[in-house]
Amino acid sequence: MSGRYIAVEGVEGAGKSTVVAGVGDRLEELGREVVSVREPGGTDLGEEIRRLLLHGPEMTAWAEAQLFAAQRSQLAADVIRPALARDAMVLGDRSVYSSLAYQGHARGLGVERVRRVNEAGLGGTWPDSVVLLRIDPGTGLARQAVADRIGAAGADFQRRVAEGFDALADAEPDRFLVIDVDGVDRRDVVEAVLAGLGVA
Amino acid sequence: MSGRYIAVEGVEGAGKSTVVAGVGDRLEELGREVVSVREPGGTDLGEEIRRLLLHGPEMTAWAEAQLFAAQRSQLAADVIRPALARDAMVLGDRSVYSSLAYQGHARGLGVERVRRVNEAGLGGTWPDSVVLLRIDPGTGLARQAVADRIGAAGADFQRRVAEGFDALADAEPDRFLVIDVDGVDRRDVVEAVLAGLGVA
Repeated sequence: MSGRYIAVEGVEGAGKSTVVAGVGDRLEELGREVVSVREPGGTDLGEEIRRLLLHGPEMTAWAEAQLFAAQRSQLAADVIRPALARDAMVLGDRSVYSSLAYQGHARGLGVERVRRVNEAGLGGTWPDSVVLLRIDPGTGLARQAVADRIGAAGADFQRRVAEGFDALADAEPDRFLVIDVDGVDRRDVVEAVLAGLGVA
Repeated sequence: MSGRYIAVEGVEGAGKSTVVAGVGDRLEELGREVVSVREPGGTDLGEEIRRLLLHGPEMTAWAEAQLFAAQRSQLAADVIRPALARDAMVLGDRSVYSSLAYQGHARGLGVERVRRVNEAGLGGTWPDSVVLLRIDPGTGLARQAVADRIGAAGADFQRRVAEGFDALADAEPDRFLVIDVDGVDRRDVVEAVLAGLGVA
C-alpha cells in the first residue's frame, strides 16, 4: 500500500488532535506505519516558529502567513516527503488548509494569494485528503481554553474561520471529508473518518 | 520634500552598513529626517526572526525565503510606511532585492517566484532606489569575518549572489545605482551615492 497524506482540520476545540490519535492507533493496528505531524511545528525550525506564532510579539497578517508557510516548507521536506517515500500514512493535525481558512479567509488576505505563497515552498507536498471536523465555533471555543495569540482572536474570528473551511470543502468535494462532530462520540468520529477515507 | 525608500545592497563585506551610516549623516546635515533599517530585523518580530535566520537550525531554502519575507512584511508595516508617510528618508541595509539575489538567484528558487512571495506581504512598499555596491566577492569575504549561517555558505555562493545582483541591476537600470567600490575610499562612495541619487 502506498503512502497517503491526510490532514485533519477544523476550528479550535473541534477535537482534531484526539481524532488524529484515534485514527493513527487504528491504522497502526491495521499494520500501517503512521507518522503524525502537527502544525505549526514538527521540526527544530518549526517548533521555534511555533513559539513565535503562538506566544511571540504582535505581527501583521502577512508575517503570520509567511511564518506558517516557512514552518510548513520545512515540515514537508524533513518529515512528510520522507514518510510518504517509505509508504507511511501521514496524519496532519492542521495543514496548509488552516492557512487558507485562517489567514486567507478569516484575516482577509485572500485564499488564492495565501495558496500561492504556500505552494511556492511546498514542492508539491499537498494533503491527499482533508478531514474537516465541523462543530459550532462557539461550542469549540468553550470546550478548549485557548491561551495563545491566534486562539485569543475570539468568537467572531472563529466563525469566519469556520466559514472559510466550509468554502474550501465546497470547492474541493473530492479532497474533503466533512464530518459534523457536535455531540458525536469520538470513537464514532474515528470510525467515520476511517470509513470515509476508505482506509479501514 | 517627500519621503523616499533607498536600499543599499551588495555581497558580504561590500561596506553597506558604513555607506548607510555615511549617507544618513549627510542627509541629516541637509535637514532630512532619516530612518535607517536593517534586514533581517528592525522590529520585535524581525529581531526574533533574524536570530533564527543567522543562528537557528538548518532550514530549506524556501523556509529561509519565507522567513525573510515575514520579517520584511512586519518592517514595512511598522517602520517603513509610517516613516515615508511623514516624509522621512528611509535607508535600508538590505531589502527585498537581497532575497531576489540570495534566495531567488544564488539558492536557485527563481527570482520571479521569490519576488511574488515577497510582494504578497509588502503591500506595495518597494525600494524607490537601490544602491548596489559592487566588490569582488572574494575581497568582500576576506574583509568581513562572517560567522553566521548564511555568510558561511562560502565564496562560490557569494559569487552567485553577486551575479544575481548584477542581473537585477541590468533588468531595472532606472531603479539601480551601481557603484564599484573596490579600492575606493568610503567617503567618496558616500558622495557618489548622494550625487547619483540626486539627493545632495
